[in-house]
Amino acid sequence: MSQIKIFNDPVHGFIEVPKNFILTLIDHPYLQRLKRIRQLGLTNVVYPGANHTRFSHALGAMHLTQQALRVLMEKGVLISEEEYYATLAAILLHDIGHAPFSHALENVLIPNMHHEKMSLWLMQRLNEELNGVLALAIQIFQGQYPRPFLHQLISSQLDMDRMDFLMRDSFFTGVQEGIVGTDRIIKTLAVHNEQLVVEEKGIYSIEKFLVARRLMYWQVYLHKTALIAECMLIQILKRARYLFLQKKLSECNDKLAFFLGIQEQQALEPQQVIENFVALDDIEILYAIKQWQFCQDKVLRELAQRIWQRKLLKLSFLSKEAMAPKLRLFKEKFQNQTGYTEEETNYFVFGESVSNSAYLKQSQEPILILKKDGTLTDIIAASDLSNIDALSEPVVKYFICAPDFVWKD
Amino acid sequence: MSQIKIFNDPVHGFIEVPKNFILTLIDHPYLQRLKRIRQLGLTNVVYPGANHTRFSHALGAMHLTQQALRVLMEKGVLISEEEYYATLAAILLHDIGHAPFSHALENVLIPNMHHEKMSLWLMQRLNEELNGVLALAIQIFQGQYPRPFLHQLISSQLDMDRMDFLMRDSFFTGVQEGIVGTDRIIKTLAVHNEQLVVEEKGIYSIEKFLVARRLMYWQVYLHKTALIAECMLIQILKRARYLFLQKKLSECNDKLAFFLGIQEQQALEPQQVIENFVALDDIEILYAIKQWQFCQDKVLRELAQRIWQRKLLKLSFLSKEAMAPKLRLFKEKFQNQTGYTEEETNYFVFGESVSNSAYLKQSQEPILILKKDGTLTDIIAASDLSNIDALSEPVVKYFICAPDFVWKD
Amino acid sequence: MSQIKIFNDPVHGFIEVPKNFILTLIDHPYLQRLKRIRQLGLTNVVYPGANHTRFSHALGAMHLTQQALRVLMEKGVLISEEEYYATLAAILLHDIGHAPFSHALENVLIPNMHHEKMSLWLMQRLNEELNGVLALAIQIFQGQYPRPFLHQLISSQLDMDRMDFLMRDSFFTGVQEGIVGTDRIIKTLAVHNEQLVVEEKGIYSIEKFLVARRLMYWQVYLHKTALIAECMLIQILKRARYLFLQKKLSECNDKLAFFLGIQEQQALEPQQVIENFVALDDIEILYAIKQWQFCQDKVLRELAQRIWQRKLLKLSFLSKEAMAPKLRLFKEKFQNQTGYTEEETNYFVFGESVSNSAYLKQSQEPILILKKDGTLTDIIAASDLSNIDALSEPVVKYFICAPDFVWKD
Amino acid sequence: MSQIKIFNDPVHGFIEVPKNFILTLIDHPYLQRLKRIRQLGLTNVVYPGANHTRFSHALGAMHLTQQALRVLMEKGVLISEEEYYATLAAILLHDIGHAPFSHALENVLIPNMHHEKMSLWLMQRLNEELNGVLALAIQIFQGQYPRPFLHQLISSQLDMDRMDFLMRDSFFTGVQEGIVGTDRIIKTLAVHNEQLVVEEKGIYSIEKFLVARRLMYWQVYLHKTALIAECMLIQILKRARYLFLQKKLSECNDKLAFFLGIQEQQALEPQQVIENFVALDDIEILYAIKQWQFCQDKVLRELAQRIWQRKLLKLSFLSKEAMAPKLRLFKEKFQNQTGYTEEETNYFVFGESVSNSAYLKQSQEPILILKKDGTLTDIIAASDLSNIDALSEPVVKYFICAPDFVWKD
Repeated sequence: MSQIKIFNDPVHGFIEVPKNFILTLIDHPYLQRLKRIRQLGLTNVVYPGANHTRFSHALGAMHLTQQALRVLMEKGVLISEEEYYATLAAILLHDIGHAPFSHALENVLIPNMHHEKMSLWLMQRLNEELNGVLALAIQIFQGQYPRPFLHQLISSQLDMDRMDFLMRDSFFTGVQEGIVGTDRIIKTLAVHNEQLVVEEKGIYSIEKFLVARRLMYWQVYLHKTALIAECMLIQILKRARYLFLQKKLSECNDKLAFFLGIQEQQALEPQQVIENFVALDDIEILYAIKQWQFCQDKVLRELAQRIWQRKLLKLSFLSKEAMAPKLRLFKEKFQNQTGYTEEETNYFVFGESVSNSAYLKQSQEPILILKKDGTLTDIIAASDLSNIDALSEPVVKYFICAPDFVWKD
Repeated sequence: MSQIKIFNDPVHGFIEVPKNFILTLIDHPYLQRLKRIRQLGLTNVVYPGANHTRFSHALGAMHLTQQALRVLMEKGVLISEEEYYATLAAILLHDIGHAPFSHALENVLIPNMHHEKMSLWLMQRLNEELNGVLALAIQIFQGQYPRPFLHQLISSQLDMDRMDFLMRDSFFTGVQEGIVGTDRIIKTLAVHNEQLVVEEKGIYSIEKFLVARRLMYWQVYLHKTALIAECMLIQILKRARYLFLQKKLSECNDKLAFFLGIQEQQALEPQQVIENFVALDDIEILYAIKQWQFCQDKVLRELAQRIWQRKLLKLSFLSKEAMAPKLRLFKEKFQNQTGYTEEETNYFVFGESVSNSAYLKQSQEPILILKKDGTLTDIIAASDLSNIDALSEPVVKYFICAPDFVWKD
Repeated sequence: MSQIKIFNDPVHGFIEVPKNFILTLIDHPYLQRLKRIRQLGLTNVVYPGANHTRFSHALGAMHLTQQALRVLMEKGVLISEEEYYATLAAILLHDIGHAPFSHALENVLIPNMHHEKMSLWLMQRLNEELNGVLALAIQIFQGQYPRPFLHQLISSQLDMDRMDFLMRDSFFTGVQEGIVGTDRIIKTLAVHNEQLVVEEKGIYSIEKFLVARRLMYWQVYLHKTALIAECMLIQILKRARYLFLQKKLSECNDKLAFFLGIQEQQALEPQQVIENFVALDDIEILYAIKQWQFCQDKVLRELAQRIWQRKLLKLSFLSKEAMAPKLRLFKEKFQNQTGYTEEETNYFVFGESVSNSAYLKQSQEPILILKKDGTLTDIIAASDLSNIDALSEPVVKYFICAPDFVWKD
Repeated sequence: MSQIKIFNDPVHGFIEVPKNFILTLIDHPYLQRLKRIRQLGLTNVVYPGANHTRFSHALGAMHLTQQALRVLMEKGVLISEEEYYATLAAILLHDIGHAPFSHALENVLIPNMHHEKMSLWLMQRLNEELNGVLALAIQIFQGQYPRPFLHQLISSQLDMDRMDFLMRDSFFTGVQEGIVGTDRIIKTLAVHNEQLVVEEKGIYSIEKFLVARRLMYWQVYLHKTALIAECMLIQILKRARYLFLQKKLSECNDKLAFFLGIQEQQALEPQQVIENFVALDDIEILYAIKQWQFCQDKVLRELAQRIWQRKLLKLSFLSKEAMAPKLRLFKEKFQNQTGYTEEETNYFVFGESVSNSAYLKQSQEPILILKKDGTLTDIIAASDLSNIDALSEPVVKYFICAPDFVWKD
């Protein structure tokens, strides 16, 4: 009867999916796989509600894109049916190339591979399977279609991807300060010379969006405990690869083994990787760590036990200058007390940095404000305060990780 | 049975009121009068949902104060029962001296009278009536009690008054960007040397609170249409006083007449004013304007008709420099086209300014952050960005009001 | 730029109003008047948040109707542009004939006049003013248009009027149990033989809607304290009319006077009433009661004082049989203790009944369920339980009102 | 500093956990394991948001219990500190004995073992570990403590367990009709003769709670697609056990193997089972099914593939009488078309029934209403309608499962 299938979403309510190739994509194993990949990886060590999946996010981002396209059409922007569905397909598939725990494991599971490249490979494969129905979606995804606002809806400083993940992550972590009035922002979108812009009255909403985003970074994405859990996960995978390449990793399932076997500088072709990639999700990683609690290698065993039993390393922020000397001191202390080798020590005592800026002012794609007189201006200039300017300063934080006892005097 | 009476509140859910003198206060005509005074005056010309009253706000602010006091006690701050209830009484009564539409009419209805002074008068009168039960509440309200954090809960840059009104005004206007996670801020409150402070982890929440506050100023409190409606209301009352003092105001109810008869420099004593003041609420003002649509004086009649029939003057922001010449031009044009006198013209064509800063950095009472190492610092220094510094710059905007036809070429 | 004007609504978020004659209607004084009539009259004596207006409700009901029409169109129901806007106009105007406090004052302010008749008169007047643009809306409103589902959307057991007022009244009173998932119900609406029906999967939602409705009746609409306040308001108006017709009512504003002068059996023509009717809103009624606290007539004075100072009569439910004897007893007791005459006593001691059934099963317009096999059935038969059957039993409650001291032994 | 640790919860906001043995329990591996067991098992095939865990539910139920205890204390019920914490411990641990997917796998993974028995075993083990600190909690959990209301808070027709899971499951599935105003119900709880009762004014809330519960059963818990997924999961485990006992299951991890090896009538002692039980969570089950897609046994392989690739069997409800003949017909048809044996056919074609009643009226523990006159009555008698009586009728539904092609003519 209805031309629409409805999904229930805790964040947006009802999500309407047109019963055409869009629904075919959603039912495809490539997208269904995202149901088994949590959006926030290990963040649930801190926020126990954060078990939402990349699948829900893909649906949600598509939903917001649909809203945005309708708003633009109501404002007189001509958008063909083909463009409409292609944009939905592009946003739906934009994260399809994410590996499990990809926030942490990107570049670790497959060295030097960005998830967007994998997304593209998978889209191209799907396009073959579906007889070219995704050709336009791929063009839009790559930013090659001559109407840039469609690409900007799915990837820019104000795209529907971020809108959804900010809202969704706030919702499921329970960090209500991150909640963003997407409705209002979307209502103020417009198109000017085929560019996505924001009407002047939307400035305060954008500003609040940028503040919320920054807040989510420090409160959730870069929360100390989540950060240390992710760092430890990376160490685990690095150790596992090291052991695997040395043929010393006894316990490992096939799918994971494939990826551990990829060498640092190895050039990969889609056909080699895709089958294994789409068979991999959170389950293999979690299962492997659970097993490795009892494996032979002392380093891997301790790391796996520590993460599984929540005996996490301790992380502390410090100044850039203080880092090198402290690290040297800590490594020495650790080695002395544990008997681990210098090389093994690096898995337990290490330094890193994280950075964030809410708005990239040097970006080639600034957020553009459409003033009432019809002129365009960067949001920094449009805002009546130096506030957004301030927000666009990148904040870099340095930190050291080490076991508890190393921190004590 | 229960020692608690429960009020339903759309914003906070259940509000618990202890069945002691706090409930007596709530049932008193002085507080019940606030049920007939809308919190946002004429803002419902723009936001039709904004019909909430000062009574609900008083209850809500008391509710948040109760939450804050409990959080502090859980953290080991000793607060006696007497202090507890006195603080609740103080916040409950803090706005009791507001006149109808006081956002606009403060200083107009009673010249040179601040609502806090009237609140104090009324509290003192209540204290007599209730045999001194409010003595401590009055001390706290005036900031004379030796434990300043109790006063700071009801009046400071981070008081429960603002927390509630920001949340409530966002809620009822439907401007969701103004919604503030008061729960989280309240959880991070602490007391240090009897001062109210915020734990370090609360910084991002405070920042978001300040941004939300600024947003609400420009989007709601100083919304152009609400602003012009309020300016016109002031003009109406000024004209009515002028006519009244000239004995030319035929239609006017007794209560309002009392206030219109107060002279500019007249010194007032509580006993003269209180009876009339507490008998006045939104109804008299609205009723008077409605009548004045048909009164004899041409100026008052036109102003009343314009506001009632939504033929509002037009307001436009402009630079400080541009103001004087434009005003001169507009007045001349208006006089020529209407035949009004120069003095009458001032009711229809006039300039004003509004200003706002989200955070007062020169304030004697900065928002203090309690760092993990036990030291205190101003939030500007504690924030990792120049962001709050930016927020604390006052923004001043100048505007001119005049009838539509004056703006046209 | 945009063809749509946006209103902020705390309940539904953004409400989109097409910038055609629909916006003209909203800006018209007839509809603007609803901004000064509270939806729930005196219910704010119990629920202090309940200050929302009939204007907001009209907008909200229009919003839901817009949603419903879009759902139907997506399911393939053909609806012309003319039908679409006419239905929006009809729902927008459906309550335009409500007097202030009409829940209580219907039939009291204007004897024997139902608000729907007044709504029709006003629509016809508007239609003249707007050169016939409302002809189809009026047909739909009256149920004379050959496609009954359009009328059913605005007036039936499942209309958008109820959907909105239940949601809105729950929202503003803070009685969350009344909140209804209108989204879901609307998604299950369909049209079968031009009748509005519900798809089978919507049964549980409808059931919950009916339960919520019943709950709101007993918890809000017929709440004892709200009920007694409304009964007293009726007594006040009755007494005022009695005095007015006897020429004994000294204090009364003109607009109210017109209505108090209407005789019980008087036949009224639109042109006599409309001007006065549209000039009347909550302000006149409240202003009059406030004044009558000090009027000459002892009965009116006491009633006005009691309602204004919250010294309400006491209401108690009892069995139908117990009513007459108790009433006799109470009246006698009251007369003896106060010295009021028998006729005056009736203003202070009286009995009434209220009734409610969540679903009218004998109605000519049952809620129809469209089963998957394409057949229709009444919801009572479709529900797997005798539950809705039970809900459709009317509940009648009898009560007596009298001053506190009469109830005491 | 604070004596309280705060958890963020999307449903309840902040959850406060006292930093005593309650926090020790939460940090214990037995409870942490619940983070890896989803509350609704396979329901996320239909509701993609339903990934919340039993851990969050345990926290949430504890939170509501804390609220309920505070309400009771405010009403004058004396509750000692020991009783307070013991009740929190009991509710926190009440579900600790749940196996992964226990909604489906209870009695399948460990034959004839109810999860409450396992919860008790684990509590006793914890009690030993923690030197008897749980003695009172265990007494309360078992209903052996002389103050029954404490047990009733954690297990009865109105316990905090149901309150939380209904709210939580509604929240995460996005089925808003299931949302229950727990705040209001909790506020109306009272204690009478040491029994948990509800004050009269709470009747409508309870009624709504029961309706919401029934709705959630049919809309979520017994949703056709979720039901068929669970039935298939049971078939998979049954087949795996059959193969394992026949030593024909090549691929199986150790932990799962332990359980597959338990014989139907085998008597189990805690010490045999506990270690393996607490090592088992969703990961092993999901991992095993994923592997079994490629196993040797044709039946297990097909079942695993069907569930993983969402080629679910089809389920249809029918009358009890129609079941046996249809089942016979379908099995025959399936065997003929596939070549499976009769015994193998039973894994693919089978009939079952589900039942639900919202309120058990024959229960020994009815929901008791405390009337204003101090007497008690069952809610059925207290309700002014036969509505709850109707709700208490059990509804039984019969259904058949079979592959799609069997259903077709």
